[in-house]
Formats: sequence, C-alpha cells, structure tokens
Amino acid sequence: MAGNTFGTIFKLTTYGESHGIAIGGIIDGCPAGLKLDLDAIQSDLDRRKPGQSKIVTQRKESDTVQFMSGIFEGVTTGTPIGFQIINENQKSKDYSHIKDTYRPSHADKVYDDKYGVRDYRGGGRSSARETASRVVAGAIAKQLLSSFKFNAFTSSVGDLFIDKPYQDLDFNEIENNVVRCPDPAFAKAFEEKIMQVRKAGDTIGGTITCVIQNVPSGLGEPVFDKLHADLAKAMLSINAVKGFEYGSGFCGAKMKGSDHNDLYNEDGTTKTNLSGGIQGGISNGMDIYFRVAFKPVATLIQNQDTINNAGEKVIMQGKGRHDPCVVPRAVPIVEAMAALVMADHFLRARTTRL
Amino acid sequence: MAGNTFGTIFKLTTYGESHGIAIGGIIDGCPAGLKLDLDAIQSDLDRRKPGQSKIVTQRKESDTVQFMSGIFEGVTTGTPIGFQIINENQKSKDYSHIKDTYRPSHADKVYDDKYGVRDYRGGGRSSARETASRVVAGAIAKQLLSSFKFNAFTSSVGDLFIDKPYQDLDFNEIENNVVRCPDPAFAKAFEEKIMQVRKAGDTIGGTITCVIQNVPSGLGEPVFDKLHADLAKAMLSINAVKGFEYGSGFCGAKMKGSDHNDLYNEDGTTKTNLSGGIQGGISNGMDIYFRVAFKPVATLIQNQDTINNAGEKVIMQGKGRHDPCVVPRAVPIVEAMAALVMADHFLRARTTRL
Amino acid sequence: MAGNTFGTIFKLTTYGESHGIAIGGIIDGCPAGLKLDLDAIQSDLDRRKPGQSKIVTQRKESDTVQFMSGIFEGVTTGTPIGFQIINENQKSKDYSHIKDTYRPSHADKVYDDKYGVRDYRGGGRSSARETASRVVAGAIAKQLLSSFKFNAFTSSVGDLFIDKPYQDLDFNEIENNVVRCPDPAFAKAFEEKIMQVRKAGDTIGGTITCVIQNVPSGLGEPVFDKLHADLAKAMLSINAVKGFEYGSGFCGAKMKGSDHNDLYNEDGTTKTNLSGGIQGGISNGMDIYFRVAFKPVATLIQNQDTINNAGEKVIMQGKGRHDPCVVPRAVPIVEAMAALVMADHFLRARTTRL
Amino acid sequence: MAGNTFGTIFKLTTYGESHGIAIGGIIDGCPAGLKLDLDAIQSDLDRRKPGQSKIVTQRKESDTVQFMSGIFEGVTTGTPIGFQIINENQKSKDYSHIKDTYRPSHADKVYDDKYGVRDYRGGGRSSARETASRVVAGAIAKQLLSSFKFNAFTSSVGDLFIDKPYQDLDFNEIENNVVRCPDPAFAKAFEEKIMQVRKAGDTIGGTITCVIQNVPSGLGEPVFDKLHADLAKAMLSINAVKGFEYGSGFCGAKMKGSDHNDLYNEDGTTKTNLSGGIQGGISNGMDIYFRVAFKPVATLIQNQDTINNAGEKVIMQGKGRHDPCVVPRAVPIVEAMAALVMADHFLRARTTRL
Repeated sequence: MAGNTFGTIFKLTTYGESHGIAIGGIIDGCPAGLKLDLDAIQSDLDRRKPGQSKIVTQRKESDTVQFMSGIFEGVTTGTPIGFQIINENQKSKDYSHIKDTYRPSHADKVYDDKYGVRDYRGGGRSSARETASRVVAGAIAKQLLSSFKFNAFTSSVGDLFIDKPYQDLDFNEIENNVVRCPDPAFAKAFEEKIMQVRKAGDTIGGTITCVIQNVPSGLGEPVFDKLHADLAKAMLSINAVKGFEYGSGFCGAKMKGSDHNDLYNEDGTTKTNLSGGIQGGISNGMDIYFRVAFKPVATLIQNQDTINNAGEKVIMQGKGRHDPCVVPRAVPIVEAMAALVMADHFLRARTTRL
Repeated sequence: MAGNTFGTIFKLTTYGESHGIAIGGIIDGCPAGLKLDLDAIQSDLDRRKPGQSKIVTQRKESDTVQFMSGIFEGVTTGTPIGFQIINENQKSKDYSHIKDTYRPSHADKVYDDKYGVRDYRGGGRSSARETASRVVAGAIAKQLLSSFKFNAFTSSVGDLFIDKPYQDLDFNEIENNVVRCPDPAFAKAFEEKIMQVRKAGDTIGGTITCVIQNVPSGLGEPVFDKLHADLAKAMLSINAVKGFEYGSGFCGAKMKGSDHNDLYNEDGTTKTNLSGGIQGGISNGMDIYFRVAFKPVATLIQNQDTINNAGEKVIMQGKGRHDPCVVPRAVPIVEAMAALVMADHFLRARTTRL
Repeated sequence: MAGNTFGTIFKLTTYGESHGIAIGGIIDGCPAGLKLDLDAIQSDLDRRKPGQSKIVTQRKESDTVQFMSGIFEGVTTGTPIGFQIINENQKSKDYSHIKDTYRPSHADKVYDDKYGVRDYRGGGRSSARETASRVVAGAIAKQLLSSFKFNAFTSSVGDLFIDKPYQDLDFNEIENNVVRCPDPAFAKAFEEKIMQVRKAGDTIGGTITCVIQNVPSGLGEPVFDKLHADLAKAMLSINAVKGFEYGSGFCGAKMKGSDHNDLYNEDGTTKTNLSGGIQGGISNGMDIYFRVAFKPVATLIQNQDTINNAGEKVIMQGKGRHDPCVVPRAVPIVEAMAALVMADHFLRARTTRL
Repeated sequence: MAGNTFGTIFKLTTYGESHGIAIGGIIDGCPAGLKLDLDAIQSDLDRRKPGQSKIVTQRKESDTVQFMSGIFEGVTTGTPIGFQIINENQKSKDYSHIKDTYRPSHADKVYDDKYGVRDYRGGGRSSARETASRVVAGAIAKQLLSSFKFNAFTSSVGDLFIDKPYQDLDFNEIENNVVRCPDPAFAKAFEEKIMQVRKAGDTIGGTITCVIQNVPSGLGEPVFDKLHADLAKAMLSINAVKGFEYGSGFCGAKMKGSDHNDLYNEDGTTKTNLSGGIQGGISNGMDIYFRVAFKPVATLIQNQDTINNAGEKVIMQGKGRHDPCVVPRAVPIVEAMAALVMADHFLRARTTRL
C-alpha cells in the first residue's frame, strides 16, 4: 500500500519523478468558493525553485505550475484541483553513471531492494523535486487559512544558530536574504558558512523554525491525530529531515514541571508558552512553533567510495549542480506542509460538534 | 473527523475515558494464523500499569485485558480482535475539584473549547490511561513481527543522560531496574533524581531511546508515509511527547555531508549508521533507532494559580497519586507504538511488487 | 487489509463472532453535544433481535447494549463511543456438526479458503449477528439526523409484492404486524407465506423498500462517493442481500428519456421523482427511496448433500432454530445502514464550502 | 470531504471537468514490475470514446492518454502513475444556454445547491467524460490481473433483453457490433431500437451484464467490504446507473432456499451458481456475474420545460450531439470499474494470512 497521499479531508496526492515528463498532483477537498491568487502560488514555488541564488543548485527549472481543473473563473469549485509542473531539465544522459551505482546515504539501494526496478535519473521518485507539488498545495492551503500566519525561517546552519527567541525576530526580514533568516547578522554568517562549505565540495545541515500565528483554539484530534503528531509526520516526510520538536521540545525533557507548566491569564491565554500552542493535541490559541532538523545533502562534489548493484566496490565521482545546504530552499516546503496540516484540521474541526 | 484509529492495514481503534466503565479497542487487520502468547501481552501491560514501583503513581489498577473476539483456540482468525480493560479505580468523587477548573498545561480547557462538553474525571479521554490499549495492540504486533527486536529504554532524566552509544548497552538490563535503564549506574542516578523530585512535589522530564533490530530492507513508503514519518507521528501521539529524532537527528543538522554519509560495505550494509536504518523513508536493514522527548508531568503536588471555566482566578491544590516522571512507564508504550508502525509497514510492503 | 469499518467521518468499526464472548463496536466521529435517547437505541435492537415473534428464529438473546465510553451524563462528548452486546447464547456444543462440514451457500468454505482457520460456531464472523452492532450505531445516527425520517418496510415476500406506490402506504402501520409491512392486507399474506414455508422446513426471500424523507439538498459527493453508491454498498454489505436499485431502478432501464426525466416546479422540486431524490450522486431534497433484494436463508430444516473439508460427500442434517425469512428482522438493519450513510454524508457536506 | 478516490490499496484519484484543459488521474498502489501494454489501454479508451459509431454521440475527441510518471522503460516502478487526457473539444461558447438553466434530471441544480459555484460547460465535473480516466486505470488493473477474464456486454435495451444464460453466449462476438452484444440477432435488434429512438430525438435505457472468470477463491473482505458490496458501489458510481444485482439478484428474492442453495461438488465447485461466485462477501472460485441498470440519457433533442437559477420557467431547447443510449459506450466502463475492484481486493488479500 503506497503512501503518496497526505491529509484526510484537505488531501494532496502527488505523482512524478525528477526526470520524467512532469510532476504534479491532485488536491481533493479544497472547499468551493475560494478566490485563488495564482501569483501567490507561483511566488511560493519560486522560493523553492533551483537557480534562485548563488547558494543553491544552479540547475535551471522555471517550475511553472499549470492548473488543469477545479478552478472556474478564478474560484475553486469544490472539485479536485489537478495541476502539473513540466520537467524542463530532463536530459537523462547525465545519470547513466548512477544507473547501477548506489550513492551513499541516498535511496538508490532501498528502492532497488523494495521495488526491484527504479527510475535512476536524478533520484527518480526519491528526489526532493517532488516537494514542488507540496508547495503548490500548501500555497492554496494558506489562502484557505487567510487569517493564519505561517512564518518559517532558517534558524541554524551547521553549529551556528540564532540565539534569540522568535519573538525578537522580524519575520519581514526573512525574504530579504538568500538564506531566509530573519536576523541580518545571522543571515550573513549563514551565507558565508554555506559558501565556504560549497567551495570545499561539501554540504552542511541546518534547522528551520516555523511559527504559526492566529490559530483558533480547538484544532487537532485526540488521540492519534494530535495536531503536533500530524505536524511531526508532515515534517519528517520532507526529504533530509531527521528531527522535529515543538514548544519546549527536547529542552522540555530536561525541565521540572514547576518550571514547565504554562499558567493561565484570566482571558484564557497563558503567561508562558512552553506548550507550543498545543495542549493534548489541540490548539489553544497561542502561537504554534516547532523546529525541524535537516541533515547535510548527501550529494558531494567529492569522490566517494561506494558499491554498485552487483556488490562491487566503485568510486562515485562528485559532479553536477547540487545544493550545498538544503535549508534555504526548504523554508517554503516547511510552510507548505504546515499549511496542509492546518487546513486539514481546520476542516476536520467542522464536524466536531452537533 | 475524529482521530482514534492508527494504522492503515494493521489498524488499531481505541475507545475509553480514564474513569468510564472500560477502555479498549479493536485491532483490525491482524493476519490469520498467529498463535498468540496472551501472557506476553499481559506482561507488557504490567510494565505500563500504575503502582508497579515506588517511583510511579501509587494508583491501583490491575489492567487486565480481556479479548472478546478474533481469537479462536488461541490463534488469530483474521477477524477483528476486540478487547477491553475494565476501569477498576473509577470513583468519580475525587474529581469534582477539577470539574470547572482548568489545570495548567493539561487539556481541560481545549477540550471545552473544542467540544463544549467534557468528561472531567481524571482527564477523561485526554488521560494517558488510553495508552494501555496501545500496549495491548503493540504486544500483538510484536508477536506478528517475531523476528524483529524492539528495545526501548530510559536514556535521560532531567539533565542526566547516558553518555554511551546504544551498542555499548546491555538491553537485558532494562527490566532489572525500576527506571528501565540498560546501564546500572545511570539507572541508580535516574532513580535518585526521580525520588528527589517526587519529594519536592514536583515532576521531571526525560527521553526514551528505542532501537529496532532485525528489520528487513524495504519497509516504508515514499513519499508521505516514510517509515520515520510514521514513527514520528506515532511517538508524538503519545501523551507528553515534545520531540522526535532518528539516526543522527538534531546533531545531524550540525554536520557536513562528508562526515554524515554512510558508506557501503560490499555486502550492502553501511560502515556507519547516521541514517538510522532508514534511507528515503525505507528501511535498509541496519538498526533503526530514535529518541523521544517527554515533558515533565503537568500534575504537581503543589498549589498552582489557575482559572476556572468562568475565567476566574482560582488556586489548584496539588493532591492525588501521580507520576513524578512519566518516562519509565512510557517505555512499553514507545515499544508498542513502534511495533504498530512496523507491523503496518510489514503488511503494506506485501503489496509493493507484482 | 480487512474491511470492518464503515464510513469516513461518522465511522463504525465492529468486532465479534456469533458465539464469542460478545459482539460490539466503536463509533468514531459522532459529534459532541448529542443528547442520546438510550431507550430508542434498545428499541431498534429489539426490532432486530431473535425470538420476537413466531415467524422468526426462536433463539433467545436479550441483545442488551452496554455503552463503555463517549457518553457523559447522557450526552455525547465527541470521543469514541465503545459499546458491546454480550452473547448470552454461546453454547458451542451445538456446532460440532459443522466444524468440518461446509454448509451449502454459506461462507464456511470461503472462510477456510481465505484464512486457513475459522471459528465455526454459528457461522462465526459471517453470522448476521454482527448486524446488531450496526443497528446500535444506526440508531445513534438517526438521532443525529433527527429531522430526517427513515422508513423501511417489507415490500415483497417470494412472489407476493405490494402493488402500490409508497406514497399510498401508511408507515405507521409498519410496526403493527410481525412482517413489518405498512399494508395490513399484504402483511397478512406475507405472514401466511412465511408460516407455510417454515412448516416445510424451507425458507424464502423477499425485498425491503426504504424511504428517507426530509433530506436537505446537497448531500453526496461526486464522483465515486455518490450518495446512492454509498447506499448501494451499505445495503450489499448486509448478509443475504443480492441487489439494490434506487429511484426508477431496473424499470428505468426500460424507459425513454422523455418519460424518465423529472421536470422542475418553480420552487425547485420536481413534478416526478424517478431520480429517487438523488441527481449526479447528490441529494436534491426530494424523497430518497430504494429497494433491496434478500435471498432466502441458506439454512434449511431439511437434509442437504454437501462436502466436508476433506472433500468428502456428507449429508448435512437440517436442525436448529433459524429464520424462515430474514426480511422482517432485516428492516431495522436496512434503516440503520441507511442512517449511517446519511450521517456520514451529512457531516462530509460541512466541509464543502469556504 | 470529497469523494474522488476509489480503492484502498490499488487506488485511483481522478480530476477534471468536461470542458477544462484536461481530465486525468493518479493511480497509486499499482505494484512494481508490471510490463504495460500501452496499446491495450488506448484500445479500451477507444471503446469508450465518442464518435466511434453511428449510434453514439458524434462529438469528436481522440481521447489519447499520456502517462506522466510511474512507468520506466515500459514497466511500472511502484510509484504513482500520473496520466492525462487533453480535452480537445472544449469550446465553451456552446454552453452559455445552460449557464443559468437547470437541465431536467441532470446535476446542474444540485451542484449549485451544494457548492454555490459551478463549471457549467458540458456538465463540468458531473459529465460522464470523467469515466475515461477510470477506463485508463481499469485497463491497467486488467493487466495486473492477467489471468482473470472480464467480459461486459449490453444485455438489454429498453424492453428488449437477451433471453439466454450468459453461458450460451459467445463473448468473442461482443466487439463485432456497435452495441457490444454477444448475440448477433439481439445486436441487430438493439441497434435498430437505438436508431429509432435517436430519430425521435429521444433516448433509452438498458442494462449491462458483466462476467468475471478465473477468479481465485478468497477475495473480498468481511464485513463491510464484501466483494459484491464494493462491486455495487463501483457500478452505482458510474453516471446514469440506477441498480445492481449479482448472482440470482432480484429474482433470488422470489425463491425458496431449497431452490436457491448451491450444492457442492466434491472438488469444492458448486453444481449451480446462484451465489454469483461470491459467498459471505468472498469469492469462491466460480464465475462472478452481475447486472447493472442504466437509465435513459437525460439530454434530449426535444424542447423541455425547466427552470433557471432564479426559479423562473424557461424552455430548454434540445440540441447538440448526445448519446441516444449510453449502454454501448458504458461497457468498457463497467469492465474498468470491475477490474479496479478486483485489483484492490487481489492486493488486499495478500495481507490476510501470517
């Protein structure tokens, strides 16, 4: 049983390989009557696309989304929204060197183990190119939730991290630099770090913090589909993600209850927000915030020892155009997945009461 | 749309409030022909139950599971397995003090916000008592996956953490101490820490590490239902969990690709395992390991300022029998949820190839 | 992947074998705040239970439902409603004669083929006893849809059929006779027919017509989950059902478009209703009506030739207490399944518009 | 919650309006390693397409399917199969007359009621054009089930019906006539009937019988997802379908048990097959057969009284190119939906046993 659908009421199903004809998807369950801002959708795609700055891969893809259905005269009709992004850069000749060879820390071998057959061109289905479809759907989810505010940003690169609470950051700064960092000084440091790693033909990991504001109380479903459980799954489903924490997170595991409890104000808000805006899996109206860990990209511009599908040692030559750090381009993906989770629970909550 | 079912093929649906007549569930999709060891199921329940040692709540519940269907002459028949655990300790008089009052960092208020009505006795549906049903189902999942090895253990309490790789630990030690720690020296330190916190009427957080061994390559589904994404959701769905990381986790976000990549041996195993046994969402045959962060229990034996449902300030008196640290009792829950995820993907993988 | 759950938002999962400890289920997704009339639920169960009249099986089961969760002070809380019906009549000694023998037109052999193991007592999971759980859930669904009217009735027994449109029948008569027929004359004829068949140790088929009134326009989902497609599945999932037709049904297949089209009145109602209250899979506000065909019960009080699981010829002796005609007891089951479909679509429709 | 996905493991999600840019879909869950015969897929599409003979609509659409993903070097890879069919005939000027007018017995009004907005061109999402996507997926399902035989055919038009059991028919004749009838004499009569109705600007209903052979025992899931229940839903989800019966069907409701029971041969086959190849919802290895009723097409080449969306009386002028009888073109759709059901249960059955 395959796993290419996300969501229960606001549902996204995606298809497509990195170097096939197109990638795309179907959004089923978007309510009727939503006037779509198509430019805003394309704009989120542009934040994710390759070639947008010197710190990301220099591959060229315009990543233009085309909608096939579900929108009439600019308004959603309640029927499924089919869309596609044509793969413009699908020359397969570049990938013959990995046809039989398993790249370290890539999914090449497990796909062969699992399926017995594999579209090896550019990683095929395991390529992060698939996430462009998520950005399309997430951008629509954001428009559905027009009163919510989604702000994700690069909060660390390697061992450099923003040492300020998010409340002290200006989210308007995020798009003012190529690393998508709301603090100009850290932005510069992050960028330098990435350029330095790139020169060495290496890659580096980092984290993204996401803050969701203006969320009403009551979203999220006990017991398995807790709001943060669905956020965790959404984030871990993004390529290269290794960890997720919300609210106090792993730090909370070091604390005492008397320090950790969020006491109430008389209006029902809480004085602190170590809970991260979610209690018992249900939003409480405070800011939702979480952090996502990305490993360094596995493709290096260095030679690496590896094996081929006959189990023979081979040397994998590092070449091509790759991201030295996936984090800046992953910012809109994190926002998109967060928006998909929130849109789904927003609609689910409509069926809670008589 | 409610969220009381976990899994897609091996599915658990649970019901029940902390102080209702019973809790229980239905396991649908367990294959026919599995000879069940009922004692092993009860044994996992006993590891979770209250009153088992001096460092856990002293509430008394025998937590005896009764199976209603799906098993004939000791063997699963492929039909749904209904089961229940009678709530023996359901005196509701103890809970009148929280009928109208919202306990800090509990789900009382959000349940009222969401549903407009709430079974306030012992937290009702938001109580971790529900996880007993998960342990029942997880114990059956473990028997289905008899060749897999599931070992979870307490890896930190407060700021004390085991500073050794899991490979240097003896999993046979886990059940030899009340904190479920595989290292006797740390076990003693963890226990002392918990007893000290308890005396102060306080609580403390901690982490659980889980290692799954003997997993075949090929389990997990691209792109949304990656094996680690489902593990993340499973873990975050457990009460009090704030974070999840697998393989290199948050540390991996600080690393370079040249340090992080797992190079292959000729037999297809990898020399290192920063990937945590999963690549591209699919198991690769190496050990799967992950870490789960638990916040400190919100119920203190201390007075706390809070509000009632009229928005008035009230003082919540700390009383009752509660866990000073949830981690030792959560160890079998983590194992159970891990087993549910693996059982589901084990069956899903049967439909992958022609 | 098993199939013991019905519905998508208002969901029923059932468990239980005919002669196990209990049958029961979990209703997940019933909205919070519904004040339940428990007597009305038991009353629907009583309409289905054995031993209620001389034309049904004389087995004795009180079929008393017990609710375990999800209801607090008489009101639904939005959490799962667990319930059970203890099997009082579970003496398994009566069933040794079918342990190894396959009853003609029963599911004995296919269960063995499929699962390799089978609880043979009373048909196990394949027994229509399971439908008692559906009646419980359906009775709650009816209360959720308190403005809808569900009326099912026996419309034919063997080749005797009510030769009047349902508009000419008095639904208040349905419960005034043991066959559940709204026309007293036909009720008498149906009853005589069944008694005559019973005396011969034989059984007979029949049909149930169901009319759902006061349904708002807009329920049902294009394209696969059309309202009538879900009704069809619901009905065919009832034991012994062989056919379903709604509106003009099989007669409609003989008609011309100029005779079949339902023309509009100015208020949007239609002058005729060959559409059966559904157009394009969506309710249009007119009466929904459909007809369900039940085959004759396969258990006869006659000797029959058959085989055992070794493929040897054996004679199956007819004995025991069985229904000569399943239709009268199936009336509340048809209503229950119809109510489950409508409740599910009632909640689904809440997510259709912005 | 929308309903544009069919199946649980072998899953089809479709998108597209009659006069949008394209229709298409995603097949998720097709096993890897299936060598596809693309010509056979197009061939099934050609059986469904408009303009193929004088008895169907003379609209011109080449209905050429293009695959976007999931197939590599002619073999399925286990990843989702995205496909599309460009709408070539999408001039919307022809549909201004139905922009505000509700065609009798069409879905125009209920779409407005439900969604508040509607793509009125050619019926939009409610058009049977959507079924072309089902034919694509069904053709792949047939190839997955290469040993099964699917034969659907026109068994009645109006009140003319084939008065022979299907065993006496030659399925090879089906494609030898434009009405898809396996009996040449009836084929001629059906064709004449349709031509006569067409000349009058009218339409007519009919039935399709479908026979599935070489099905192994054990497919189908108790209790809700019985094989015939899923077939019923599949068939009722096809545009214009009003009824479904399998095996003895509505005739079975008139019979006695002693006549209806299928007695066993020693090899486990049955002497008769009134069960229709399914017992207790599970295939028993005998032929599966069922019958589907189609109402007459609602679009007439006659003037009809109707209303507009302001509730005013208007006269709808009959014009355009429409099918006088939908049945001949629906034959491949019935086969496709049957194949989707069988493929899904074929894969589901893989998880039944240890």
